[in-house]
Amino acid sequence: MKHARVLHNDVELDVTVNDQGDLVTAEGTVISESEVTWLSPIKKPGTIFALGLNYADHAAELAFEPPKEPLVFLKGANTLTGHKQNSYRPDNIEFQHYECELVAVIGKEGKNISREDAMDYIAGYTVCNDFAIRDYLENYYRPNLRVKSRDSLCPIGPWLIDKEDVGDISDLRLTTHVNGELTQEGTTKDIIFDVPFLVEYLSKIMTLKPGDMIATGTPKGLKDMQPGDTVVCEIEKVGALTTYIVSEQEFYGDKY
Amino acid sequence: MKHARVLHNDVELDVTVNDQGDLVTAEGTVISESEVTWLSPIKKPGTIFALGLNYADHAAELAFEPPKEPLVFLKGANTLTGHKQNSYRPDNIEFQHYECELVAVIGKEGKNISREDAMDYIAGYTVCNDFAIRDYLENYYRPNLRVKSRDSLCPIGPWLIDKEDVGDISDLRLTTHVNGELTQEGTTKDIIFDVPFLVEYLSKIMTLKPGDMIATGTPKGLKDMQPGDTVVCEIEKVGALTTYIVSEQEFYGDKY
Repeated sequence: MKHARVLHNDVELDVTVNDQGDLVTAEGTVISESEVTWLSPIKKPGTIFALGLNYADHAAELAFEPPKEPLVFLKGANTLTGHKQNSYRPDNIEFQHYECELVAVIGKEGKNISREDAMDYIAGYTVCNDFAIRDYLENYYRPNLRVKSRDSLCPIGPWLIDKEDVGDISDLRLTTHVNGELTQEGTTKDIIFDVPFLVEYLSKIMTLKPGDMIATGTPKGLKDMQPGDTVVCEIEKVGALTTYIVSEQEFYGDKY
Repeated sequence: MKHARVLHNDVELDVTVNDQGDLVTAEGTVISESEVTWLSPIKKPGTIFALGLNYADHAAELAFEPPKEPLVFLKGANTLTGHKQNSYRPDNIEFQHYECELVAVIGKEGKNISREDAMDYIAGYTVCNDFAIRDYLENYYRPNLRVKSRDSLCPIGPWLIDKEDVGDISDLRLTTHVNGELTQEGTTKDIIFDVPFLVEYLSKIMTLKPGDMIATGTPKGLKDMQPGDTVVCEIEKVGALTTYIVSEQEFYGDKY
């Protein structure tokens, strides 16, 4: 089942999405997609873990050695936004790219979870687009907020899909299309540290809780984006996440 | 005014703390401290920013050059615990130390806040003890979860005190006592990037929201701790935060 959250007549609703793409409320009312604003599908976001250089092909593309242990960094909830929402390209930067990533969402609290038991703690999956601003990437000393912590620069969705509906995640195709053109293509087969490994690794360090998310990294094929671009990140069996890139001025308007 | 959160008869209560140290509920009922468990004073923790090497004397102690821009990393809410609670020393480590830090708590949403306006966005202050596990500190590539993201390894409190009750924060004395012995002593005068600077810096990157916290770094004077130790971090005019160090086994018990 696909679980989404939408804004409908200024009310936040938990809905499911049926095979026809209709949004269905808990009471069974069907709402047209045209009447809603998509929200991040995770109602109470917990800790947001993201992986750097977790696809062998992407590490090679950036001329890095593949990491010997997971390069995990944390993101704030301010970075999340929903399907078909605006994200922005900051002013005065040279290179910002998309990153199509499979996100595993924790469904059960656990600590010291073994690799063998890891999937029992996963509720399901979603897609995120963990944008990066390459200009600042050289600074690896401590997490780089300017690259990875800006408002709305991690669209996520459209929905959380139950793990049972996806099944085996070891060879899912990932693609990104910019304005309809295929610009990124990969498979989760190239992941260096897979979901069961990451659940074991992270839960040795801290308790994992429902709502925690693990964004598992992106394959090669990155490309600069500009205001006006439409970016679609799709993962086989999981979903396709659309984002509209606008300027910083258009994104914030006169709000601040 | 001092705003605290406590667990009393299994109910979470918002209380204020009067000059006699009594806990007073919204209805005016006085509760003895002996009847409560102290919780983190921030009801809905937002993004938790922490500063590395933000006191010139501490950077020198670690033989680092003082940073040229703030070394900011994010922490998860799993790291927070309250006053007079247990924190643990992980098994199989060599060196874990306390870090007494002034925490500025955001009270109003803002983006692109100037240094001059920064204090308008601060609700008040609290004290945190941002424990570090020195064993893993050598890995500066991306935030190091093993050093800074363990459950309960950032006690915070006892309360949030309104900024008006503290006034000038540019020369507040910080101390840490371990089992009654003074082991760390410094002043916020030695902060490299002060609170107004940090509010300006962070709000250029992202929107700051009520409940966001900025842990501003620790002065020199760090010392290994062991299970059985009682650690008190105190900041002049703000408060004194007590933490009990236990073993990992005692902390988690048979829970996992």
